[in-house]
Amino acid sequence: MAFPKKVIIREVGPREGMQIEEAPVSTENKIRIVDMISECNFPVIEVTSFVSPKWVPKMADAEKVAAGFKRYPETEYQCVYLNAKGIERAQATGKFDLEGVLQITASETFSVKNTNLTIDETFTKMDERICTLNEFNIPVHTIAVMTAFGCTYEGDTNPELVIQLIERSIAKANSFGENPKHILLGDTVGWANPISTEMLVGKVQDRWPEKDIILHLHDTRGMGMANAYVGLKMGVTHYDSSVGGLGGCPFSGAKGAAGNIATEDLVHMCHELGISTGIDLEKLLKVTEKIEGILGRELPSKVSKGRSLNSYRRIASN
Amino acid sequence: MAFPKKVIIREVGPREGMQIEEAPVSTENKIRIVDMISECNFPVIEVTSFVSPKWVPKMADAEKVAAGFKRYPETEYQCVYLNAKGIERAQATGKFDLEGVLQITASETFSVKNTNLTIDETFTKMDERICTLNEFNIPVHTIAVMTAFGCTYEGDTNPELVIQLIERSIAKANSFGENPKHILLGDTVGWANPISTEMLVGKVQDRWPEKDIILHLHDTRGMGMANAYVGLKMGVTHYDSSVGGLGGCPFSGAKGAAGNIATEDLVHMCHELGISTGIDLEKLLKVTEKIEGILGRELPSKVSKGRSLNSYRRIASN
Repeated sequence: MAFPKKVIIREVGPREGMQIEEAPVSTENKIRIVDMISECNFPVIEVTSFVSPKWVPKMADAEKVAAGFKRYPETEYQCVYLNAKGIERAQATGKFDLEGVLQITASETFSVKNTNLTIDETFTKMDERICTLNEFNIPVHTIAVMTAFGCTYEGDTNPELVIQLIERSIAKANSFGENPKHILLGDTVGWANPISTEMLVGKVQDRWPEKDIILHLHDTRGMGMANAYVGLKMGVTHYDSSVGGLGGCPFSGAKGAAGNIATEDLVHMCHELGISTGIDLEKLLKVTEKIEGILGRELPSKVSKGRSLNSYRRIASN
Repeated sequence: MAFPKKVIIREVGPREGMQIEEAPVSTENKIRIVDMISECNFPVIEVTSFVSPKWVPKMADAEKVAAGFKRYPETEYQCVYLNAKGIERAQATGKFDLEGVLQITASETFSVKNTNLTIDETFTKMDERICTLNEFNIPVHTIAVMTAFGCTYEGDTNPELVIQLIERSIAKANSFGENPKHILLGDTVGWANPISTEMLVGKVQDRWPEKDIILHLHDTRGMGMANAYVGLKMGVTHYDSSVGGLGGCPFSGAKGAAGNIATEDLVHMCHELGISTGIDLEKLLKVTEKIEGILGRELPSKVSKGRSLNSYRRIASN
């Protein structure tokens, strides 16, 4: 139970936020947003999704966004893809650092609704996924568990089930000679609370002390920052968040429900706790302001609203 | 370090929120808001301020609000007053449970700007305050430290200074035969972080284990809920919050800056952590919706936005 010295924050707003945003955002503005974020010195940015435009029409311009944004040397650029076709499209752009993710959903109902596959079917398909990754020479980097803490259909997820799902996924990966280094715990619809966060993170740390946990938190029920604090306190070093708190609650139909935790609030809290992020907070607050202008709506992050207080300034020296 | 079984949440929205709200709210609506909140079974509601309408014009209708709202037998109704005149006005309404508060501000600059008194001058005037309370037979109930964690003018408050200010205030009270039972730690402009919260709460608990701490938290920099979690984890039993997160950042001039932590988010988190509040969350979420209608703006609380998810429902049995 000790704060890490440094954390890796992955900005997922351009992908996860833009996918959900109601108002259409032009390709030009999407590119502008990625470039502005890059200028803040993020270690990782998730830029777009190479998925079927039939299912995710807002990502239909993935190639154009990829062609347009500027790669910064210190930043890793990621994208989402679901199959060989997606990998081919992403690789063709030459702009991405492709990483292999094996995704599994802990809630059976959510799994079927979101992926059309039961949990067992997901494991059956996992062989194919790993083979495809192997074909493209993409190592399996991450086991990602969606609804790892619970969902609106089934309530709390049993943490023991999550451990089993990770075990099975790692065993699959190992059987192909792969050894994923990261375990992503996805609080997909913001179901985690500080107790369940502590419990699941603790169990994963005990079982796989050598692997890095990525906490993917949503703020749907207002506990995102408290959960992030618990993660920090337990030494978790990887977090997903979205600039301004872009996005919403996926697949829930809850209009106005909060999205990912806001990057600037997370960055600010890390700096307050003496944890380095490498991210330029002052620049980031200006990015939020510009994105609010592009979207024509206020974003929910708090530090950005208090910025005229200059209250974030004192941490600039961290 | 253990969660309390039950906490007392004081709803401060009708006073602290209405004082800051930009759009004028009619007296009728103010009364309606207090009554709706009462129906949710709050232990304590801060209704209004009996202060000079010259300084706080939004509270000029304090008598009318007092005359109009309905007292519920299980609820304690509080109000703010600064002098004998205020007490007389509040007492004349016959609607309030008057409690004696000795207020001190830890930041010299903030103290002068907000009260026109230095810290030393505040102590000089404290004799008069206690005499006035005595005259009206109001016991000294609470020592309240504003900007206990810091402010935008002076940055972090030294927790040792806060301990000294509380010491001096209690000594003053004792010299008049008074023994305040509560210590309010006011994070007036949302400066606290989880580390400073833990440090100051710990010091106050160590020094006065027999007294109850009231945590008055703002969410200006997005850490309000994380700070509340730290307080809960340390066994703090009293919290101030505002329905929907009404209000803003006082005296800061930061337009749009977040106000008090949102009551429903706090209530929900408590229930998630197995801590009882006695408050009817489902009713409260409907109150937020109605207040949003009255104000014509969205309030920042998160649980209220996700309410179509019914994600709060499962805790109804707690």
